[in-house]
This record gives sequence, C-alpha cells and structure tokens, in this order.
Amino acid sequence: MKIVIINGPNLNLLGVREPEIYGGRRFEDYLACLQHKYNDVATIEYFQSNVEGLIIDELHRTGFDCDGIVLNAGAYTHTSLAIADAIRSITSPVVEVHISNVHKREPIRHHSMISCACAGVIAGFGLDCYRLAIEALLAMKSE
Amino acid sequence: MKIVIINGPNLNLLGVREPEIYGGRRFEDYLACLQHKYNDVATIEYFQSNVEGLIIDELHRTGFDCDGIVLNAGAYTHTSLAIADAIRSITSPVVEVHISNVHKREPIRHHSMISCACAGVIAGFGLDCYRLAIEALLAMKSE
Amino acid sequence: MKIVIINGPNLNLLGVREPEIYGGRRFEDYLACLQHKYNDVATIEYFQSNVEGLIIDELHRTGFDCDGIVLNAGAYTHTSLAIADAIRSITSPVVEVHISNVHKREPIRHHSMISCACAGVIAGFGLDCYRLAIEALLAMKSE
Amino acid sequence: MKIVIINGPNLNLLGVREPEIYGGRRFEDYLACLQHKYNDVATIEYFQSNVEGLIIDELHRTGFDCDGIVLNAGAYTHTSLAIADAIRSITSPVVEVHISNVHKREPIRHHSMISCACAGVIAGFGLDCYRLAIEALLAMKSE
Amino acid sequence: MKIVIINGPNLNLLGVREPEIYGGRRFEDYLACLQHKYNDVATIEYFQSNVEGLIIDELHRTGFDCDGIVLNAGAYTHTSLAIADAIRSITSPVVEVHISNVHKREPIRHHSMISCACAGVIAGFGLDCYRLAIEALLAMKSE
Amino acid sequence: MKIVIINGPNLNLLGVREPEIYGGRRFEDYLACLQHKYNDVATIEYFQSNVEGLIIDELHRTGFDCDGIVLNAGAYTHTSLAIADAIRSITSPVVEVHISNVHKREPIRHHSMISCACAGVIAGFGLDCYRLAIEALLAMKSE
Amino acid sequence: MKIVIINGPNLNLLGVREPEIYGGRRFEDYLACLQHKYNDVATIEYFQSNVEGLIIDELHRTGFDCDGIVLNAGAYTHTSLAIADAIRSITSPVVEVHISNVHKREPIRHHSMISCACAGVIAGFGLDCYRLAIEALLAMKSE
Amino acid sequence: MKIVIINGPNLNLLGVREPEIYGGRRFEDYLACLQHKYNDVATIEYFQSNVEGLIIDELHRTGFDCDGIVLNAGAYTHTSLAIADAIRSITSPVVEVHISNVHKREPIRHHSMISCACAGVIAGFGLDCYRLAIEALLAMKSE
Amino acid sequence: MKIVIINGPNLNLLGVREPEIYGGRRFEDYLACLQHKYNDVATIEYFQSNVEGLIIDELHRTGFDCDGIVLNAGAYTHTSLAIADAIRSITSPVVEVHISNVHKREPIRHHSMISCACAGVIAGFGLDCYRLAIEALLAMKSE
Amino acid sequence: MKIVIINGPNLNLLGVREPEIYGGRRFEDYLACLQHKYNDVATIEYFQSNVEGLIIDELHRTGFDCDGIVLNAGAYTHTSLAIADAIRSITSPVVEVHISNVHKREPIRHHSMISCACAGVIAGFGLDCYRLAIEALLAMKSE
Amino acid sequence: MKIVIINGPNLNLLGVREPEIYGGRRFEDYLACLQHKYNDVATIEYFQSNVEGLIIDELHRTGFDCDGIVLNAGAYTHTSLAIADAIRSITSPVVEVHISNVHKREPIRHHSMISCACAGVIAGFGLDCYRLAIEALLAMKSE
Amino acid sequence: MKIVIINGPNLNLLGVREPEIYGGRRFEDYLACLQHKYNDVATIEYFQSNVEGLIIDELHRTGFDCDGIVLNAGAYTHTSLAIADAIRSITSPVVEVHISNVHKREPIRHHSMISCACAGVIAGFGLDCYRLAIEALLAMKSE
Repeated sequence: MKIVIINGPNLNLLGVREPEIYGGRRFEDYLACLQHKYNDVATIEYFQSNVEGLIIDELHRTGFDCDGIVLNAGAYTHTSLAIADAIRSITSPVVEVHISNVHKREPIRHHSMISCACAGVIAGFGLDCYRLAIEALLAMKSE
Repeated sequence: MKIVIINGPNLNLLGVREPEIYGGRRFEDYLACLQHKYNDVATIEYFQSNVEGLIIDELHRTGFDCDGIVLNAGAYTHTSLAIADAIRSITSPVVEVHISNVHKREPIRHHSMISCACAGVIAGFGLDCYRLAIEALLAMKSE
Repeated sequence: MKIVIINGPNLNLLGVREPEIYGGRRFEDYLACLQHKYNDVATIEYFQSNVEGLIIDELHRTGFDCDGIVLNAGAYTHTSLAIADAIRSITSPVVEVHISNVHKREPIRHHSMISCACAGVIAGFGLDCYRLAIEALLAMKSE
Repeated sequence: MKIVIINGPNLNLLGVREPEIYGGRRFEDYLACLQHKYNDVATIEYFQSNVEGLIIDELHRTGFDCDGIVLNAGAYTHTSLAIADAIRSITSPVVEVHISNVHKREPIRHHSMISCACAGVIAGFGLDCYRLAIEALLAMKSE
Repeated sequence: MKIVIINGPNLNLLGVREPEIYGGRRFEDYLACLQHKYNDVATIEYFQSNVEGLIIDELHRTGFDCDGIVLNAGAYTHTSLAIADAIRSITSPVVEVHISNVHKREPIRHHSMISCACAGVIAGFGLDCYRLAIEALLAMKSE
Repeated sequence: MKIVIINGPNLNLLGVREPEIYGGRRFEDYLACLQHKYNDVATIEYFQSNVEGLIIDELHRTGFDCDGIVLNAGAYTHTSLAIADAIRSITSPVVEVHISNVHKREPIRHHSMISCACAGVIAGFGLDCYRLAIEALLAMKSE
Repeated sequence: MKIVIINGPNLNLLGVREPEIYGGRRFEDYLACLQHKYNDVATIEYFQSNVEGLIIDELHRTGFDCDGIVLNAGAYTHTSLAIADAIRSITSPVVEVHISNVHKREPIRHHSMISCACAGVIAGFGLDCYRLAIEALLAMKSE
Repeated sequence: MKIVIINGPNLNLLGVREPEIYGGRRFEDYLACLQHKYNDVATIEYFQSNVEGLIIDELHRTGFDCDGIVLNAGAYTHTSLAIADAIRSITSPVVEVHISNVHKREPIRHHSMISCACAGVIAGFGLDCYRLAIEALLAMKSE
Repeated sequence: MKIVIINGPNLNLLGVREPEIYGGRRFEDYLACLQHKYNDVATIEYFQSNVEGLIIDELHRTGFDCDGIVLNAGAYTHTSLAIADAIRSITSPVVEVHISNVHKREPIRHHSMISCACAGVIAGFGLDCYRLAIEALLAMKSE
Repeated sequence: MKIVIINGPNLNLLGVREPEIYGGRRFEDYLACLQHKYNDVATIEYFQSNVEGLIIDELHRTGFDCDGIVLNAGAYTHTSLAIADAIRSITSPVVEVHISNVHKREPIRHHSMISCACAGVIAGFGLDCYRLAIEALLAMKSE
Repeated sequence: MKIVIINGPNLNLLGVREPEIYGGRRFEDYLACLQHKYNDVATIEYFQSNVEGLIIDELHRTGFDCDGIVLNAGAYTHTSLAIADAIRSITSPVVEVHISNVHKREPIRHHSMISCACAGVIAGFGLDCYRLAIEALLAMKSE
Repeated sequence: MKIVIINGPNLNLLGVREPEIYGGRRFEDYLACLQHKYNDVATIEYFQSNVEGLIIDELHRTGFDCDGIVLNAGAYTHTSLAIADAIRSITSPVVEVHISNVHKREPIRHHSMISCACAGVIAGFGLDCYRLAIEALLAMKSE
C-alpha cells in the first residue's frame, strides 16, 4: 500500500516557526518514526512545497495510483479553490489534516476551501494527526 | 483509563435515519466492538440524549474525572453555545466527531460552535471516527 | 388514520399569552372541536413541550407509523436545526403551521429552519391553520 | 361569495413546464374541478398574466369587492414590492400560495416580498394549495 | 415649456389606498390645480401605469423633447434598474419625487435604484412634492 | 414581596468553572447572604437548570404571580428565541443579568436575544449584579 | 414667520471647496438673496458650525419656537445619530437638504441617519435646494 | 434552422442611448447584416420589448420549436427571476449576450439572475456578441 | 468618595424630549435627590455636554482621581470610538447607563461602542439606573 | 496574426478530470483541430501551468506583441487578483473563457476576479468556447 | 517650509494612556526634538483637540497655505466622514499617521475613513511615524 | 546592516505597466540610487517573483538573519494568507509598502491580509516609500 504526505506553505519551517502553535519538532524526524511504524503495511512518500501550483502538480502525479493522500495545505487551505479542484480531479482519497485546532485561531482559518473535496478532516492533535490520517486510510482500504 | 462517548440529537436513530448519509449500522452494535477492542486499555461509557441540557449535565457529571470525552453533538454542534461553555467548564479533553463530512453538506453545517472549545476534530470517516478519537485520546494520555 | 399534533414552546399558554397576536382561545378547547369534527376519518393525538429534545423524542416515537404530523414548533422554528434533522429522519409527512403570519413580525421570525424538511407550510389563519393542515394530510393520503 | 384566483408569470405553462417540480396537470382542468366543488358557496374567477403591472391592475379591479383573492405570484413573489403595495392598497384578503415547497429550492425563493402584506401563506401541497386557500377564505368569511 | 408627470404602480389609487400614508386626495384633482397654477409658464402632461415597461416606453417617448419629467416610480423606485437605465438614456432632466418620507418606512424603501440617474430628489411633503419639483425644473431652465 | 432568581446553563458550576471570568464563589453561598439581607422585604426563590425548556417552564410557573424575576440565562441569552417568547408571555417583570461584562468577550456574546423582552439589563459587576437587580425590582414595585 | 438655516461641517468653505461638486458661489452671498426674496413673509436666520455638538445646541435653542429649520448637516448626515435624536427632540419641522445629489457619490453618502427624523428631504438642485425647502415650509405652515 | 433574437428594455434606443457604452449603430441595421450573412443556414426572427412580461410571453411562444434563442435581457438580466423561470420552462437553448462587458460597470450589473438558466454567456464584444451567439447555436445544432 | 455623572447629547432636554421614552422629570431635580441620598458617603459631581470632544475632556479631567464615573453617552454610545478610547485611557471605573431599554428600540441602538471599555452596564430602569450605578460603584469600592 | 491560448490549473487533466462537467476530450487533440482550422489566418500558441505566477510570467512574455490571448484561468479566475493585474498590465486583448457554465455551479464560481480586466467573456459552450474566442479576436482585429 | 502636525482625540494623554500600546513618552517632548532636527528646513506647528469639529477648523485654517499636514486623527480616523471631507476641501497634502500598527488591533480600527482623502499613510513605527511623514512631505516638495 | 527588498507580482513591469498609477520609472534604476545612497550603512539585496510560493521561499531564506525586509507583495497583499504566515514565521522585521495609495483604488485593495503580520505600513508616496521603509528600519535598529 502506498500513502503520500503532502505539506503546504511554511510547513518546511516546522519546529522553527511559532513553536507555541505548531510545536518544536521537525517534520522530517517525525516522518522517519511514522515510516518505521507503518513499515510492514505501507510505504509513505513525502512532498513539501510553498508553491500552490506545485502542490497541484504533485496531487496530479500521485493521485491516480496511490492508496491515499494526507494533505496539510497550510494557509492554502483557506484560499485555494485550485487545490480543491485538483483533489476532485484525482481518484485517491485525500485526508485533510491540521496540526493545530484551526478553530481556536483567527476567523479566516475557520473556513476551509478544501474540506468539501476531501474524504475527511482531522485537526488539533499536533503531529499525531498524520498518524490518525494514516489509520483512517488503512481502515478505508480494508473495508 | 476511562473514556465517555456522548451522542447528541437524532443519533439514537443511527442505522435507521438517512442511511445514505449516516450508514446502515446501529451505534450500539458498533459500540460493543469498540469496547471489546479497547478492553485492555480503557473502559468506554456511553450516553445519548436529544435534550441539549441533559448533554450538558452529562458533560458536567463525567468531565472532571474521566480521561477523555468523544462528543458527537449532532445538530447542536452548529447552534449550541451552551454546550461549548460546558466543554470549557470541565477539565477532561473533548474530541469532536462527525460521522459524515459536514463540509459536503448544507452551509449551516460548515460552522461548528463547539470546535473552538474542543481539543480536536475528526470528521468524515463514518463510525470509524469514534475509534480514531479514542486513538487520539490514548496518544494524548501517553504523552 | 392517525394524525399527531405537536406544539412547541410557550404554546401551552395559548389563550393567555399575547392574545393580540395569538388569540384568546385555549388550544385544548380547539383540539376537542377538531377531534370531534374529524372523528370519522382520523384519530388526532396531541403533544406539547417546551423542551426541544422532548419534541424530537416525540417526532421519533410517532413519526414512523402515523399518517401525518402537524407541527407548530414555536420559536424553535427559527433556531432548531436538530428538529429539522428529526423531521428528515422520520417517514411520516410533517406540515409546519404558524398561528400568526410570521412574516408580519420581527425579522428573526421570517426565516424557518424546518420548512425545508417539511412537506408544506400553512401560516397566518389563526387556529384554523391546524384544520387546514389536517385537510392537507387527508388529501395527501387519498392521492 | 366571490373568490378570484390570480396566477403570475410562467404559470400558464403549468403541466408543461418542469413537471418534476410543478406536476403534470394543466391549471385549467384543475380549476374546473374546483369551480364545480365550490359551486354552491362561491363563484371562482380566474386571471393569469406574465406582466407584473397587469397583475396589479387585476388586484385593483377585483380587490375592493370580492371576498378573497388566492394569489400565486410565481417568481414575482420574490422580487415585486409593487405587488406587495397593491395587496396593501386593496380591502379583500389575499392568500399567498405556492405549488412547490419554495423552502426546498434555491435561496432566492426562500424570501417572499409579499407575505407580509397577505393574510396568510400556504405552500408545498401541489395544486391542493388552491383548495386549502379557498377553505381558509371561507372560514374567515364565516367568522 | 413642457413638463411631464409620470406616476408608477398603485398611484392610480391615490386617495383610496392607505390614506394615513398617502393622504386622501385624488391625484387628478391635484393635477388640475397644478396645471392651472402654472398655466402661463408650462403645459403639464400626465401619465400613469402599473406596468414597468410602459413607464419606460413613456420616458423614451417624451424624454428627448420635453423640458423636464417629474417621476414618482412608486415601488419600482426600489427594484427597477431598467427604469434607471431609461432615465440615463434620455436627455430631459428627471426629478424623483415621493409623497411620503420613504426613510420613515420599511428598510427596503430606504434605497432608491433610480436616484443616481435623476437630477435631484424631493420626498416627504405630500402632494406638494410635485409642485416643488416643477419649481426646481423651472429654476434649472432659467439658469 | 416575592422574587425568583433563575440561573441557566453551566451556572451550577459557578465557583468551579473558569474562575478568572466568573469568580471563585459558589452561587448557593452568595444566595444565602442575599436572602438574609432582603429578609424583611422579600422572599427570594432560586431555580437552576441546564435545560432550555425547563427554564421556560419555570418562567411560566412563577411569572404570573411573583413580583419580579432575575434571569441569568447563560449561553441561552444569545441563542434562545423561545426564552424571549416566554418572557413576553408572562406578566412579572424580568431583569436580565450577566456576571461578566459580556461585551468584553467573543462577538457572539455581544448580542442578546432576550434583552428586548426584559425590563432592563445589568452586566459586569460580578455576583453583585443579582443584588442590583433586586434593588431595581424593589424600586419598580415602590413606584 | 421665522426660519433657521443650519449648515454643518465644511460648508463654511462653500465656493472654495471642490467647486466641481458644490459650485463656486459663497453661501453668504446666496443667503442675502434669499433673505431679500422672502423679506415679506419670513425672517431667515443662519448658523454654521463644524462641531457636531454645537449644531445640536443650535437645534435645541431654536427648535421649540421657530416655524421651520432647513438643515444641511454635511458629512454628519451620514454618521450622526445624535443630530437625529436632537431633531426628534424638538418641535419645529426640519427639512434636510443636500446641494449635490448624494446618490451619485460614494456609497457611504447614500444613507442618511437623519432623514427618518426630518419632515422631508430635498437634494441635488444646488443652492436652489434651500429655496425649495423654504417653499416647502411655507406650504406646510399655510396648510 | 430558426433562431430568435430577443432584446429587452432600452435596447430599442441602441445607437441613441449612451453611445460611449453601447456604440452608435442601430440594432435594426446590424440585424439586416446578420440575416443576410446567415441567409443560407438560418432564419433569424427579432423581438424587442420594454415589458418584462411580454419578453416572457415571447420566450413561451417561440421557445418550444425554434433552434435557439439569443437573449439580451438588458437591465432585467439583473433583477428578473421570472425571465429565468421562463428560460427554464422552455426547451430551446438560450444564449445570454451583453454588448458591453458588464463586469467593468456598476456592481449591480456583475450578477446575472438568468445565467444559471441559460446554455452559455457571451459578453463584451459589442454587437459582434450576437454573431458569436449564433455561431455557438449552429455548433450546438451540428453536434 | 467622589463620583462624577456625565450626560451626553440631548440629555439636557430630559423631561422635555420624547417623554414617552425618557420620562417627564428633569435631570437636575433627580440629581438633587441623589446627592441628598448619598450625602454621607459620596460627593456627586455633574457634567453635561452635547459636544463629543468635551465629554472626552471631562473624562480626562476627572478620570484619574475620582472613584467612579456614571456615563450616559446618549447617541454617542453607538457611534463614538473616541469616547471608548478615552474610557480606556483613564483609571477610574466607568459605569455605562441608559434610561430606556435600548434593546427595545431601533437596531442601531442595540450595539454599544463603549460597553467593552466600561466596567459594567445598567439599562432600562429609567432614572433609577443612575442610583443603581452609584450602588455598583460603592460596592466595587468596598470590595 | 498571433494568438496565445493560456490554460490554468487542472486543465492539463481535461478529458480525465470530472468528464461529466468538462467533457471527455483531451485539450491537445482539440488544439490540433483548432490550429488546422485557422491555419491560414493565425498561428495559435499554447501554454498551460498550474502555477499562478507562471501564468503571470506568460501573460507578460506574450502580452505585448501577440494579437490576442484566450485565457481559461480555471479556479484562479475566482481567487487571483494578481492575474487580473497582469492582464491590465499588458496591451494585447484577453478573452476569458470557461468550458462549463460557471453560473450553474457553486456560488464561489459565480464571481470572476478577472472579468473586469478582460475584453470579453465566453462561457458554457464546452471546448467550442475557444473557437468562439478566436472568432471574437479576429473580428476585433478586422475592425 | 511650514508643516503642521494635528493630533486628534486622547492623544493629549500620550505617555499616560495605555503605554503598552502607545509608549511612555509625552508628545510634547518628542515634538521638541523633531522641531530641533528640522530647524533648518521647516517650521513645525502643533495642534491637538478632542473635538472633531475643531480639528476640521484647524485643517481649514492651515490647509490652504502650509506645505503639508501630518494628521493622527486617533479614533476619528475610523468614524469621521467630516474630517475626510475637510481634507478633500483643502489644498495642502495630508499624511495620515498611526503610532501603533492599527491592523494588529480590533477590527473597527482596520478601516480608515480618511485614507482615501490623504496623500499617503504611515503606521506602526511608534513616534518615528511623525518623522517619516515629514521626510515624505520634504521629498514631495522637492520633486 | 543588511536589508532585503522583495517585490511581488507584476512589479517586474514597473515603468511599463499602468504608468498613470505606478509611475514611469523602472525599479532597477531606482534601486541603484537607493543602494548608492545607503552605501555606508546598509547593503540592500533585491528579489522579485510573480510566484507566491517563491516569495515565501525568499522570506524563509533571508528572514532569519537580515536586519529588515521591505515587502511590496503587489496583489498578493490582498489574497495571500500564506505570505502572512511566512512573515510571522521569520524573525526579521518586515515593512509593508505600496507605491500607490491603495485606499483610493477598488475596494478589494483596501484590505491587506499581511499588515497584521508586519511591523508597519507605508503607502502612497510612490517609489519614495522604499526609502521611507529603509529609514524606518534604520531607526528601529538604532533604538
């Protein structure tokens, strides 16, 4: 089984940027743990970009043959109709994740433009959201 | 470890009501599986009511000594400031869950009045959301 | 044929409360006339509660086997998504009634959250709305 | 007793236009039945126009001496302040009817500009709404 | 000098309709006084219609060679972009008048769609608004 | 003279819940002081419920013969049209109180649905608001 | 007969400020003509201030015994609830005037906070609006 | 093949009205060229009215047997739900055209009430829009 | 102890202006009673102005050394951010009062711009609001 | 004559993505037909990118010397002020096209941020929109 | 060269009021430094008032012959259309300054009513904003 | 001291694009003057891109060790939450600049999504804004 994690703008700074909101751990370290944990059941690919269009390119590239995509679109979550269209265009299920509970932050972060195109949403559990998303994809697969 | 699942209005009809949205399985059957699965690590209590105030009573009754609450407030999610206040009043973490992806439905269901009071949100994975919420609470506990 | 009339909050005060808006006749007196009039063709049950959740309970209890429900949800008409969900969950047709012409009153009463879940709406004819609703249900039945 | 039925724009196509919404029966056929049914107690006149101003002319012409008007203003319901003014200008009571449950359709059809000028509103029961409106007018008359 | 007075929907009922708002005098009687008063300096033509499109026709017919138009568009004031376009299309100056002070009435009457196309606005002085409008047109002419 | 104090949702937790907002004193202790202070001039009854409908029931039960009601409707203040209707239905004057200054909190707490139905409003003085409300009711009575 | 003209903020610059909107004539010159013209029937007083509160003082000082006030409140027209209150507090009729057609300018100038407190409104005829307002007051007086 | 061109309010003044927006050519002249150009493949009928209801009548009269309608509804584009309903009621495809680019004009012209009922929209190319619409209808036909 | 009462625009007309809303008693008479009543515990100063900026000056002049300010800002309550800023700038607690229940009046009076800067709010009890405000300030002081 | 077609995000998937909305034909195949058809009168270049900034780069690169640009900006149509700015910055005319009738889809697709910067708009005729846009550009050129 | 600095409401309290937002330095001290620094190239006058109308008077008095005005209108920035009108009425360029970054504060401070009338805006650099504004005026002058 | 200037979309066309708004001078020429002027106190780097994500990359690359960033985000100012996040993620202060006074242009340009993340804002002084921003950064540094 193949799962792709896609991180959007500013998430390359995880562990550096506003640690009181996003925590102090780098995503690469966490990813290694995740890959190790699910070693037997899934390969986990990783992609990050600050460029909206390159995230769309990646969704197109992987979204027709992987078994699921875990997408943290960062701030593009709230402004990108084009990413929502890309999700609708592909066939793999996409799980939207947010590290922080976006509903506790500014109003503009309360509305997601991509939720209605995703299979489901997981938010507020820190990096653990990525594990929960993989759990959800595994369960979908086994149905 | 003790976890409480609270279901709000109309969820007593699960398996009966609009099965194309909520699925055809009764919650009690699913609950039994869940209790069995987490038998070793947690007791799982269950409460359902159609009365907003009784849901608040239950949050008060259990929210100071259990290890986590999984709350599907149904339609009250979108209208009840009083439940949000109750969540803020207690000390146990609350995970908001929704069986369907509420963002694919009518606009009034896109905004949750309780999300900002909860630890996190999980939506769109059918009944599996309850299992994911328990996973999230277990991970919080073990941190 | 079985028809259930459900009245919501403050309608227990009919004949007492703001008679310039709602008239000076008690509902129980009117109900007796109604039951007498339709004696041959229908039994008419009656339920009133000020508690939103108990109205939902009653809709669940009667909404799978009666031939129609006449619902005056009072102020909950304008705020209760949960009652709208309950109406959608059951199989009996529901007719929404309002004694006064709500469109002549404050703006918050111009929008109904439950109309879109009901079969039809009748408003503004005083207590006669209940009779017209029963007429409508009888006609639906005979189609 | 004299009752006037006024139908607004596009209702001349009833039975032809979008039958999944409005049904497949021509209004003229239905009208004949109605006139026959109420033969003993009321004469029922009929007027239809696609022109907003001619509907106003008709309201003026008949609205000072008939016993009631049943008005389905079609799409003008949602845009015509001038028809609302005309209703307020005359002395006969006007009952607003809609064949479909307008609250189940697009948002622009959820708000009526004429309801606040009418005696009452009946919507969602198909052509039977016209009969219910006549019933309501007869009851008003006999009060 | 030639001046045209155009009255819109329901103004044919002046003196009949809602006299507490519009007064109890028929427009035709008032018009005769006005014509008499300005006999020496202007001919005053009069047109009334309830049909929006016929008001546009009249604006087209007279709006290229008369010296001024006094327009009371009634309820179309608040809904007709087409009349505003007609006013902009012609060359005679148009003065918008309202018998009542529309700002004391319902919010929908606080906004005029045609004011921005007119030379000026006079409202709230009862029938005297028509005389003041003629005064304003005479003054414009003499500048 | 008889005065009834009605507290709404979550106010049973006063002294426990968010003491930085609501203070650390239990309401029952405060109530005893209040009853003692006004011993000579008024009996003070107390009712608390988390259930919206039971608050309405209590308003109905006491609102026709007591001399005044002090109502802290908690979060229902901002969402319950039904409680506003209940206040309008009864004859005893109702004083709305809020322990905190709601205008310093989230926007949803800036608008009260019940203020327009109450005699007056007192907010922001902590528990002392209840005493001020009783003072106001005594003054009304003595007018 | 005594009439008071009150001009608000920036109108002291008339003839200087933005002449393409307000014209190039000083108000004092125009006033002299006006006083001369109505010499036989009315004394015309004049007051101008840029201070909102001093306009209120002037309305209080003259508004109980003069026969009418012509008020051009300038930009305060669109922001001052206090001037509206002052107009409602006094007994002399107030006519609102605007030199330019405010409906042709920025949206914030389309809404007047004081119109609903005035007897009537005259706008768009340049300085001639003041004369028309006096004409309107004379007509009111002679009714 | 039969095509009908319907022009709405004020378009009878084309070539006269605001030529800086709509150009200086009369529609009748342009129509003759168009009829000549498509002589071999289509007959082109023409109808213009300033009356909303007569446009609806024409849509009804021709909309069940012609091969396509080119509709420039003028200002009714932005206010007429009734024309939108008429378009939905008929079977011939309707192409909405606008001579000017409405999106460069006032905000009220940015929203069309009829676009969602039409097959497609062409705007901004001057009178050439009518030719492009016919091209589009021919292509549809030949599919 | 020193308390300052500040009254805003139009409150100098109390007893004269709209007595059905504000009562028929002059503030100076009431003030004398109040000063007499609290003679032993507090000196009560009084200031009234119709000028927004002079109210700010007075808040600055007294707001650093008196024990409390009772402010009825009249219509400036709803429009003056500058008064709100002044309240935040000083150190004495400010109690906002309104003679009438502003929530029963026009919508613009439902929102206060200064409440969020004040210690608390008292509204709807007529002139008695001033006494209640002084009671509140005395209680604050004695805490 | 040189024409450039620019396609925005997700249009590389044409023929693959949601064929019920966008049709089942690949754009490259259609482009070849188009280039063949207009072989004699125009060269047609093609550019597609999912990256907003690269679309801007392409508009800059070609927008000063080609004879026209046909732009389908996909979802960026509704969110990109920067593309609108780029269109305004260049000198070649730009025609906005949409394959589907965007007005029949979700509300966010009803508003275009770029229409006001384009020469004209063509929408709803499937791939034929590109041909119609070229027709429009040819006609503009020949004027 | 002559420059005038005008400070609006509450800025007389600078150094006293909310120092965590506005800093702890009195404006008079800062002004002396500024006057000293630009001694050779400009005289700097200073005016402060809490009265909106007096700020307008000062703009009128100095705004036709000085070389530039630095205006910190305080809270009137967000509510005063009359000050915006005054700025448009005069001929000297006006630079709007704000000590704090208003965009980091409450929403009402995000919108300025005067920016559109000013030459430019400088905000967020503390008292240094006044120096930067003078720099900007000097550069404008030397162009 | 090191300062970085970042220009966003379409600013590569400065001197070419809409010179009536942005002036006719190329940015590179202006930059050379600026670098020369501040030669002794600061090195000034320059970056421009039309790609939102590459602007974010540049903010990340330079934002942890330079002494200040001058950012003109062009149209992304009004739509990019992701750039606002990037500014919050880095440690160097960012000054937002706009060549034109954005408040004089279309409404969409009145709101900046990035102002609340920047240290301060300078707008409306043409290219001189960049010099003023550098002045501001130098002053911040020397504090």
